[in-house]
Amino acid sequence: MDHVFPVFDQILNRREKEEMLGQRGSALWLTGLSGSGKTTLARQTEKELSAQGFLTQVLDGDNIRTGINSNLGFGKEDRQENIRRIAEVTKLFVQCGIVTMNSFISPSQEMRDMAKAIIGPDDFLEVFVDAPLEVCEQRDVKGLYKKARAGQIPNFTGISAPYESPLKPDIHVHTGNLSVEDSVRHIIEVVMPRISFTGPGG
Amino acid sequence: MDHVFPVFDQILNRREKEEMLGQRGSALWLTGLSGSGKTTLARQTEKELSAQGFLTQVLDGDNIRTGINSNLGFGKEDRQENIRRIAEVTKLFVQCGIVTMNSFISPSQEMRDMAKAIIGPDDFLEVFVDAPLEVCEQRDVKGLYKKARAGQIPNFTGISAPYESPLKPDIHVHTGNLSVEDSVRHIIEVVMPRISFTGPGG
Repeated sequence: MDHVFPVFDQILNRREKEEMLGQRGSALWLTGLSGSGKTTLARQTEKELSAQGFLTQVLDGDNIRTGINSNLGFGKEDRQENIRRIAEVTKLFVQCGIVTMNSFISPSQEMRDMAKAIIGPDDFLEVFVDAPLEVCEQRDVKGLYKKARAGQIPNFTGISAPYESPLKPDIHVHTGNLSVEDSVRHIIEVVMPRISFTGPGG
Repeated sequence: MDHVFPVFDQILNRREKEEMLGQRGSALWLTGLSGSGKTTLARQTEKELSAQGFLTQVLDGDNIRTGINSNLGFGKEDRQENIRRIAEVTKLFVQCGIVTMNSFISPSQEMRDMAKAIIGPDDFLEVFVDAPLEVCEQRDVKGLYKKARAGQIPNFTGISAPYESPLKPDIHVHTGNLSVEDSVRHIIEVVMPRISFTGPGG
């Protein structure tokens, strides 16, 4: 037989996809307390970047906990595995040239460092969505703090489980006293040079 | 406080991304024996589609078994979970408007039906990469059949575990007597109408 299926071409590489899209892949990892505004910022940042022609992907509880991580709980091991899988998915998107916005509490530095190691440090921006616990609890959009205070949710970050603030976040957004618009503007200012495609030599 | 973080914009939807990319998301699920040519076809199809301006993503053992599924073995439950996670990842890519080429043996109809249900029947094309066992075993590119015959690999599909041929594949490629070029051409002929963007009204 003369068709021996040699691997004559490697898998299409990231660079070619980035050229096609005219952008660089990157992950914006939004971390912060429940109610700090992560998902709002992720979605609004996606909207802004999209308006500027960037291809983006939001990864958050809505499409992860109901999908690939639907078989995980909220114990320590499962939370670790939750973040590990999210990071691996993110890596695939980034390798495809896409800009991801990841919206997960990811309460420990260890977790976030794991995500950074998996995705690759050059492709990872740690975004600290920082609002005081009092503010988050006052908002309590989903009624979770009330339940947590009533002891109905074990290991609730900020109430019965610790949140470790990032020591050196790449972006620090004080959502307690900054509007959504200003927060998004700040994120995009920092992100833009990272995701702009500078051409074949860049 | 007047910045109450309402969810004033939903997550950017698939349709907007497809418009931006000028293509429709879809999954080509290549199933077949080890050595039937799945990965070669997946990669060569990606190359062809890319040359025509499509954004694609190959998902195969190389980027899945070493990544998100690195903690899975090859027992029955783990094989099921392997395919479930791959399907969930694929769904995220398809929702982002991307055309995926999935290259996995996926030996049972049940597994493939699960993948189809997760990804969504309208976005799933079952591609049967069909070469006779004798041909695959003769090629034995990775030396796996030799090991399987020697009893060194348990549950090896085609040798010590069954392969259920798709009953009604969307695409049937006889790689035992078709060249790579002709196989790719056949796949692309069927796929093209599915991934071509027909505009806002289409």
